[in-house]
Amino acid sequence: MGRWEPDARGRLQQAALELYSERGFEPTTVAQIAERAGLTERTFFRYFADKREVLFAGAGELQELLVSTLAESRGSGSPLAAVGEALEEAAGSMEQRRVYSRQRQAVIAANVELRERELIKLASLASALAATLRDRGVKEPEATLAAEAGVAVFRVAFDTWTSGPDQPDLAELIRESFVALRAVTAS
Amino acid sequence: MGRWEPDARGRLQQAALELYSERGFEPTTVAQIAERAGLTERTFFRYFADKREVLFAGAGELQELLVSTLAESRGSGSPLAAVGEALEEAAGSMEQRRVYSRQRQAVIAANVELRERELIKLASLASALAATLRDRGVKEPEATLAAEAGVAVFRVAFDTWTSGPDQPDLAELIRESFVALRAVTAS
Repeated sequence: MGRWEPDARGRLQQAALELYSERGFEPTTVAQIAERAGLTERTFFRYFADKREVLFAGAGELQELLVSTLAESRGSGSPLAAVGEALEEAAGSMEQRRVYSRQRQAVIAANVELRERELIKLASLASALAATLRDRGVKEPEATLAAEAGVAVFRVAFDTWTSGPDQPDLAELIRESFVALRAVTAS
Repeated sequence: MGRWEPDARGRLQQAALELYSERGFEPTTVAQIAERAGLTERTFFRYFADKREVLFAGAGELQELLVSTLAESRGSGSPLAAVGEALEEAAGSMEQRRVYSRQRQAVIAANVELRERELIKLASLASALAATLRDRGVKEPEATLAAEAGVAVFRVAFDTWTSGPDQPDLAELIRESFVALRAVTAS
């Protein structure tokens, strides 16, 4: 008890996702997740507030990464281009998690409460990106519109990316989704 | 009991909004809302599932109006232009509810649960608009991107519209917000 466990966090995430996929999110307990990971419940709660947050810890990390990339971006392009560059850079670091992400999306799609939580996390991401753009001197409503449009582009690309194993890289899908957005808004 | 009450629904909505504004959403009870409206709890539950839904009944009506307008639209413009026309048309019918809408936004802004419910309703609206565009032959990802961009434009315009009494008409704000979106995505 209390000793350091190598990659306890990752093991708990993997165990949770396996159990949610096999049995469903609702009936799975923290005790079962800890047991599958070979860890204790106490260790679980050192990393996650509850069994739902296991699925959304990555969303918080993604938000931090995107905000810091956007804040440090030195591009002279439009606000939306800056958001696009941050998204593409984050996509690179997500590429190795495609199988995990696909399983996670299937679990979320099967549960109303999780779908709602995902929406709230994406709205939080858009708000954070808009705030970062304002810090860079972008005015409203441009900051909010660029952030919302960027998150919409990301969602479309992410849904395609997790829809099957034969899809292009996420960064490539984000570029394609931006092209589609420009076509939709151009006329 | 059980007899027809003139505009019971509207009176309950008004009473609920007054009480939420005066005392907060959380402590207000259905019994208090019914009493303020001069109606019974039984009548309340004939119109609304719970005290939260009083605030969101209008969101369902807005979605129905937008979907039917978009479905019947005969415009030959882009998918986003069609969404924009539907939003402008709906804005006309919302204009007389500006004071109500402003009070409602203040109540929602003060409560996390209500803010989350609002996000979920807007996501539902975007999904419904995307489905309507697909029915009109618009492909993906264009349908989803046009719907999401349209809802982002609407949110920005709606937030400005409800921010104070001296703002332009909602339809005018929607047009301005579309111009800002085009500027953001153009470069």
